[in-house]
Amino acid sequence: MDVSNRIERALTEAIGLAASAGCPPRLAEAMHYAVFPRGARVRPRLCHSVALACGEDHPAATEAAGAALELMHCASLVHDDLPCFDGADTRRGRPSVHKTFGEPLAVLTGDALIVLAFQTIARVDCPPDRLLKLTTIIGDAVGVPFGIVAGQAWECETEIDLAHYHRSKTGALFVAATAAGAASAGADPAPWRLVGEKIGEAYQVADDLRDAAADAEEIGKPVGQDIANDRPSAVRKLGIDGAIDHLQGLVRGAIEAMPPCSNGQELRSLIMSEAKRLVPAKLAQFAA
Amino acid sequence: MDVSNRIERALTEAIGLAASAGCPPRLAEAMHYAVFPRGARVRPRLCHSVALACGEDHPAATEAAGAALELMHCASLVHDDLPCFDGADTRRGRPSVHKTFGEPLAVLTGDALIVLAFQTIARVDCPPDRLLKLTTIIGDAVGVPFGIVAGQAWECETEIDLAHYHRSKTGALFVAATAAGAASAGADPAPWRLVGEKIGEAYQVADDLRDAAADAEEIGKPVGQDIANDRPSAVRKLGIDGAIDHLQGLVRGAIEAMPPCSNGQELRSLIMSEAKRLVPAKLAQFAA
Repeated sequence: MDVSNRIERALTEAIGLAASAGCPPRLAEAMHYAVFPRGARVRPRLCHSVALACGEDHPAATEAAGAALELMHCASLVHDDLPCFDGADTRRGRPSVHKTFGEPLAVLTGDALIVLAFQTIARVDCPPDRLLKLTTIIGDAVGVPFGIVAGQAWECETEIDLAHYHRSKTGALFVAATAAGAASAGADPAPWRLVGEKIGEAYQVADDLRDAAADAEEIGKPVGQDIANDRPSAVRKLGIDGAIDHLQGLVRGAIEAMPPCSNGQELRSLIMSEAKRLVPAKLAQFAA
Repeated sequence: MDVSNRIERALTEAIGLAASAGCPPRLAEAMHYAVFPRGARVRPRLCHSVALACGEDHPAATEAAGAALELMHCASLVHDDLPCFDGADTRRGRPSVHKTFGEPLAVLTGDALIVLAFQTIARVDCPPDRLLKLTTIIGDAVGVPFGIVAGQAWECETEIDLAHYHRSKTGALFVAATAAGAASAGADPAPWRLVGEKIGEAYQVADDLRDAAADAEEIGKPVGQDIANDRPSAVRKLGIDGAIDHLQGLVRGAIEAMPPCSNGQELRSLIMSEAKRLVPAKLAQFAA
């Protein structure tokens, strides 16, 4: 079974817990809506590729870790879209969860997805110390002091610490994806964190590039938001060419940061192809 | 060190993670505000008493489980108070979290406390299989299909399943408290679930009694809400006397349901004294 199918199957199984008799049906529906149909599943794919690179020996652990990462990512999107944050009416080209199910269910859907991520890991049949390590890696990537929730909370401060903001809000789940991939294969997660950091930063730069130079249709959300909202961005700081150079440097850096491993080819390909996929079509010629 | 001090110390240590340099300071402040000063800490006390009854051998595991239960309880209060749910301006006699810190931080505080509960358990130095069991017990008590989040979500359905509603919204964390107490001491949690169920139901009945017959000052929140909001309640169903009888039957049932254990005296005392404490002053003579 290929990685994409393994990821979707693991998510379907995890969400299945919400479909048990006795669960409020609209909550179950909203949770399903928040997770399917598939997004790019970037974080679980990264997790699977690192696990493979490290000689994956407990596939169920990788699958649970990948599902947990994606559930956390989806939870954060549901809460970020709430009226008190971005107030986004659409997500992935259709009404956001709070638009479809109302605000109370959107809050509860995010909560339930966060908990489901931990329930999913704790249920795997795999050495318990490995699962605990995954729990810590993913918990730290979401909670305080440096997880995505903490990252989002920087928006509520009068003075933003920009380095911590980006590292927490965007970077933390990428770092967790590489660390969890290693941990699920029984390898030391520590040296893999830098790989995740570089990839996370590359995604941030690619996001800035798409905001500055893509068509709204191409990326499925409004463009030009960084300037409109006076947000810091790599493009504003470095220009388009400078941002492309920086992105390419980060991609090379991620590959160079990979610790010795038994089977790193797929991960290298993934990193290269993602870097290509994420650059807006009209810039692709420059980024080749 | 007595149990109250152990509980407060464990919560202080857990929340300390939010006080690390690099965490957004207002998020850290809001998390602290949501958890301190102490409430009755009913769930951790129950957890500690069961652990003691089962011959507690890893005090740090009990303490982490107790802290995790209370963090989850506090998280649910913060989210329940949001404008899209109860819109409560006060809690424990002072402004609620969203009134003090704003709605975005209230959402994030709840999220961060949920995650912190799992981070706290995963960090204990204790046999990993025991910690995984605690993770599952507490995750199931909060998430889908039967945890407190699912319980709250019944309020978003057009038809409420009342049995599931109460069992999930109020009962689940009590069941988790007894089960986690047993699991943290290495005992089988299964037979302890019924004890938690009875106690949870007793709290629900006591809550209904207080709503019907206490002074607002005595319980620190408005009374008469069940009738005002046309909510089902034991008092509306059974009358005051009937509800008191039912409460006493549940308390006896909880004590009778205790499985054989090495040291059950403190738990029995706790159950008896709680039953007394929770009955409104003006009814105490009838409930003696």
